Amino acid sequence: MGLAVAQMGAVNLADTRAAVVRRLVEMLREAAARQAEFVVFPELALTTFFPRYWMDEAEAVARFFEKSMPNADVQPLFDAARELGVGFYLGYAELTPEGRRYNTAILVDRGANIVGKYRKIHLPGHADHKTEAPFQHLEKKFFEVGDLGFGVWNTEGVNIGMCLCNDRRWPETYRVMSLQSAELIVLGYNTPSLNIHWNEPAHLRTTTHEIVLQASAYQNAVWIGAAAKCGHEDGHHMIGSSMIVAPSGEIVARASGEEDEVIVARIDLDMGRMFREHVFNFARHRSPQHYRLIVERTGAGDPLPTPPVQG
Amino acid sequence: MGLAVAQMGAVNLADTRAAVVRRLVEMLREAAARQAEFVVFPELALTTFFPRYWMDEAEAVARFFEKSMPNADVQPLFDAARELGVGFYLGYAELTPEGRRYNTAILVDRGANIVGKYRKIHLPGHADHKTEAPFQHLEKKFFEVGDLGFGVWNTEGVNIGMCLCNDRRWPETYRVMSLQSAELIVLGYNTPSLNIHWNEPAHLRTTTHEIVLQASAYQNAVWIGAAAKCGHEDGHHMIGSSMIVAPSGEIVARASGEEDEVIVARIDLDMGRMFREHVFNFARHRSPQHYRLIVERTGAGDPLPTPPVQG
Repeated sequence: MGLAVAQMGAVNLADTRAAVVRRLVEMLREAAARQAEFVVFPELALTTFFPRYWMDEAEAVARFFEKSMPNADVQPLFDAARELGVGFYLGYAELTPEGRRYNTAILVDRGANIVGKYRKIHLPGHADHKTEAPFQHLEKKFFEVGDLGFGVWNTEGVNIGMCLCNDRRWPETYRVMSLQSAELIVLGYNTPSLNIHWNEPAHLRTTTHEIVLQASAYQNAVWIGAAAKCGHEDGHHMIGSSMIVAPSGEIVARASGEEDEVIVARIDLDMGRMFREHVFNFARHRSPQHYRLIVERTGAGDPLPTPPVQG
Repeated sequence: MGLAVAQMGAVNLADTRAAVVRRLVEMLREAAARQAEFVVFPELALTTFFPRYWMDEAEAVARFFEKSMPNADVQPLFDAARELGVGFYLGYAELTPEGRRYNTAILVDRGANIVGKYRKIHLPGHADHKTEAPFQHLEKKFFEVGDLGFGVWNTEGVNIGMCLCNDRRWPETYRVMSLQSAELIVLGYNTPSLNIHWNEPAHLRTTTHEIVLQASAYQNAVWIGAAAKCGHEDGHHMIGSSMIVAPSGEIVARASGEEDEVIVARIDLDMGRMFREHVFNFARHRSPQHYRLIVERTGAGDPLPTPPVQG
């Protein structure tokens, strides 16, 4: 399978949806020319990463949310996908007909049909106005926690799962999908280079991203395609480092720039099978009776009582 | 806190328990001299990694299992720990008074009291005789799945969790302990350099070990101390690469040789707090309602039904 990850450079406040979609279409065409059958685009790909700006919900909806999908601005991407026979994953801010707001990704097949939808579950950041911070991270203000769970869809013979950005740091995300036989997990992200919550050393912003993708691909015997929006959005820098990771945990392709950039790898879906049959043969080795705390607790608590030790 | 990891070179079939314990005592003394307060020893530290040899259970028990702990052979290690005021973790094969067999680790405090016990849950390998293989991996023959869960013990003010070898590759292991407020997770391992199940590229044996420790320390905001038995045991090579990993996911100390070798790091338990308060604030960010499959399925199954997608 030919898998492309389309990293995007900055989308500034002044950029129109139509201009952004032209960039996506151009990357889709490049991916197709390089024999990709599926393209991963970033989270909130159609606009700037607006949760960094304080505003009320109504203003955010008016400026940054999509009321239908596809809509007229995005239609050219769907048309190009159908023409080229290339599927894709796309993240955007979703306003539902009922007025609910989600950080959403869709899975689109090679016929340009939307076959799956994911709404982000692990929303990072805060809902209050942090007036001392250099910028905001208002995902908990603008979005509800996703209500669709972590789904897996068989699309053109491949079991594909989806998540978004901060979800990738949580081992539960991948495990719920690998227990549904996911072979490929795709995700978009916007990760600022600066952590507003504490004085995190800059290099960790990239290395923690790498190690969670590498370990999670390995621990779940899946391929991962992760697409960043990067560069300086109106002066706010993001980490980039889009990549494709094999079930061996190895990074097989990686974006190196800060502009629009397509990376492509020929991925062997059978590689995951070797891991699933042996070291991560879940049916043989897992012991769910010892994992119950994962669903019985949300936050961390006291150690459970343990039996007295006899030597 | 001063944390030491004591990597052991080979323990060959001809080596006596008494000789092995002398090596452990020597490393304990070195660790204490280098200001460590706690030492992590390997899995099955008192003998060779005997699950590589085909034999019946009675023979294995007679040759390789401990019938009590401490026993006369191991007592010098407990005596040295008490004398020096250094706690330790030690792995060994346990025969219970009821005749059950476990791959076990104990947590010993600075007064040389056994305060915690862990029995390995994720037993790798097989129970049948693989006559074509260059060696066996008979953990599923010689041991039962552990019955004590993943415990955490507050020892001298530090919440310490334990696991063993293959457990370290499973994200559930760490999560169950971090949900009990573990600050430090210690483990011993014996990882052969050759995978008998498939033709795994040699370099992956080390890199997968690294990435799971790094990601798991980060994802759970814990320190990890991992102690290998390494070198050639009667010709069977193991990977070594004992290490201490910070909650940032960074390797802060690493063994470089194939013989007995002590590595020590001064670890700042407060470092984990920064991660627990922000990116991995479990109470704020986890969504156990979406994790249920982790305990409801053992093996992987079909994708769950998903609602029809509306654009």
